[in-house]
Amino acid sequence: MDKLKIGLIGLGTVGTGVFKTLAGFDNVEIVKIAVKNINKPRAVEVPSTMMTDNPFDIVNDPSIDVVVELIGGVEPAWDYISTAIKNGKHIVTANKELLAKKGEELFNLAEEHNRVVLYEAAIAGGIPIIMPIKTILAGNKINKIQAILNGTTNYILTKMDVDGASYEDVLKEAQALGYAETDPTGDVEGFDAAYKITTLATIAFKTRIKIENVYREGITNIRKEDMAKANELGYKIKLIASATIDENNNADVRVHPMLVSKDKMLAHIDYVTNAVEMSGHPIGDIVLSGPGAGEFPTASSVVGDILAIAAEFGKTDYMLPMMRCHHDSKAMPVKIEDTFNKYYISITAPNALGIIAKIGTICADKNISLSSILQKGVSEDNTADIIVITEKCQEKLIKEVVSELEDCIVTSIIRVAD
Amino acid sequence: MDKLKIGLIGLGTVGTGVFKTLAGFDNVEIVKIAVKNINKPRAVEVPSTMMTDNPFDIVNDPSIDVVVELIGGVEPAWDYISTAIKNGKHIVTANKELLAKKGEELFNLAEEHNRVVLYEAAIAGGIPIIMPIKTILAGNKINKIQAILNGTTNYILTKMDVDGASYEDVLKEAQALGYAETDPTGDVEGFDAAYKITTLATIAFKTRIKIENVYREGITNIRKEDMAKANELGYKIKLIASATIDENNNADVRVHPMLVSKDKMLAHIDYVTNAVEMSGHPIGDIVLSGPGAGEFPTASSVVGDILAIAAEFGKTDYMLPMMRCHHDSKAMPVKIEDTFNKYYISITAPNALGIIAKIGTICADKNISLSSILQKGVSEDNTADIIVITEKCQEKLIKEVVSELEDCIVTSIIRVAD
Repeated sequence: MDKLKIGLIGLGTVGTGVFKTLAGFDNVEIVKIAVKNINKPRAVEVPSTMMTDNPFDIVNDPSIDVVVELIGGVEPAWDYISTAIKNGKHIVTANKELLAKKGEELFNLAEEHNRVVLYEAAIAGGIPIIMPIKTILAGNKINKIQAILNGTTNYILTKMDVDGASYEDVLKEAQALGYAETDPTGDVEGFDAAYKITTLATIAFKTRIKIENVYREGITNIRKEDMAKANELGYKIKLIASATIDENNNADVRVHPMLVSKDKMLAHIDYVTNAVEMSGHPIGDIVLSGPGAGEFPTASSVVGDILAIAAEFGKTDYMLPMMRCHHDSKAMPVKIEDTFNKYYISITAPNALGIIAKIGTICADKNISLSSILQKGVSEDNTADIIVITEKCQEKLIKEVVSELEDCIVTSIIRVAD
Repeated sequence: MDKLKIGLIGLGTVGTGVFKTLAGFDNVEIVKIAVKNINKPRAVEVPSTMMTDNPFDIVNDPSIDVVVELIGGVEPAWDYISTAIKNGKHIVTANKELLAKKGEELFNLAEEHNRVVLYEAAIAGGIPIIMPIKTILAGNKINKIQAILNGTTNYILTKMDVDGASYEDVLKEAQALGYAETDPTGDVEGFDAAYKITTLATIAFKTRIKIENVYREGITNIRKEDMAKANELGYKIKLIASATIDENNNADVRVHPMLVSKDKMLAHIDYVTNAVEMSGHPIGDIVLSGPGAGEFPTASSVVGDILAIAAEFGKTDYMLPMMRCHHDSKAMPVKIEDTFNKYYISITAPNALGIIAKIGTICADKNISLSSILQKGVSEDNTADIIVITEKCQEKLIKEVVSELEDCIVTSIIRVAD
């Protein structure tokens, strides 16, 4: 049997896991690996003849069948991948940013050259999600996703909750442990999760979602006081990537912190674990959870994609038909101001007297119902800390409420998951 | 495009869901449906020319490409399916009993005739599990499964927990609501879960598990008192289907009630929801959960299988290579007496004086450590109710402990999940 010949671009954490895992399979063979620095010591023993510091040695090598791209970022990854496809290679990638920003171009190019692009590892690490949606769940119309897709922020939020610590303190600790990067922006500001939900919603909804239509807020403003209050009210705070689509193709896709009721499974997804909750017809609701990152979990997904190609390679003219992506862009974006949500609002009122009545009146005037109010006493200086949770109402009305609470300080507004 | 021609055997709950769902796809077409009584009123409108009361009209019809078997049980289903395969048809089935009892014969026959047998709906209803294990998780060596695979028993145990009600009372209610059958034996004695874990472990471990080697206990002896005590100690009681395999191919596969710590996700899988937790390398731990039964969730899996066949039908000589099953029987069964478990033991001691010391001595003599002991006072008649939870020890030793507690009544012994 001819072995499927693999060229690997990138031998970092995930690449190393892929290298180790593929050693157990005799129908695939890594023939070349491109790295930045071929002299750097590696956790795996790679024959020096296999190494190159020029990825074009891989994408232009006629003997290579599949290029596995594990370097991330748009450029130069796009240059390598697009060249590889034009050279007749199939692609396996973990590059969520490239998929979110160049997905349409990428899949069109791949179809033009009758090549497959698989990317299970790009979304939710080891959790089987892309292939299940495209194969065994293909009979469904999925219309809602709520997911925890970023391990770093989930780790930080979990530690803030468990230790009662501040965002800043936990971030430092997470950086020391290697769970957060020196520049944590991509994770803590929600970019990583936004890339992932863009692609996940595109394949689940079978219509292309554009990254520029994904609303995004990070976790840097979450206070330890909010964690404590949320707990008291029966919630956890999580960075939720969500997407819904209605019958008219209005797609509401976003990433922001949310209060999640402890009754829901997502509230119990802790530390670096990821989870994806999906609803649709005929399936109903399912939740898939597991490790969202890491050497081996991510390698599981990369290797799964490689083995899927290996199983059909050379046996049919049109491989893996269910795994192809050709989505048009029918979805209409929904502006965050127009969405309806429940809100957690934390208020510090300088004058405790009559403040509840005032809040109640402002909300009632806008037809906003309140589901919870929490005030514990009054400070010596006559200020009061108040937490309000609203029923569902339009985002723009909440902004009006806040502006009308002139003499109060609104310390936090966090959306609450259904 | 030629449509894939489907023959449906069975038009009950699931069959009706499949009929409705397939209506949305233009690449497949149901051409014939076999039912017991063609005059019975149906929830869907089926042209009478499409109906037959003779399944052989389907399995012998040369125009049919795929036979979907939804009647369950070994015979006559095996007769229909084996005839269909010999007649060159692919099979989609939800028949867990047939798979567990005739799996080897079934898959050998299918390979002999180069036909595929897909059965996503047979295990855990709508949860994507079989196809993910065989495709995207193919790079893994899975070595442990803990799962809730039977909706009826999970409903009963959840209701016992929530309502503080007895098994008998909840069973009656579940029967009235249609969640339990008039003869509930197949569910409450663990047969249904045993069928499912047999097939699930076979494909996850890539070695055939024999149903006769699967240890099985049902939930009929679970008392509401055990539910209450388990709760107090931080556990829920669930009917767990479990399977582990070690490096020497010793496979320990079983179905029995277990105390599951509230720290674990399985403890929070309630009512008719199912869940499968799997561990392996490189993936780590994942949990997949969702509706374990019902018209639409099960239809999702049946339709997913049909669409997978439709996608490759006629395009290759060897369809869906990753979905094929040829497992040898290398696994060595492990006897329940030889397994190591933690145990919850509920004891009524007629003479409270010195009973804790006695239990402690009997266990210490056998090197069994205790992790929890719960005794709340002494009754007026000097009896005491005591709960003990042990550390891991061999099952045969626990039987000795029980026999040495001569003057006590051991009211329950329930294994405790790791």
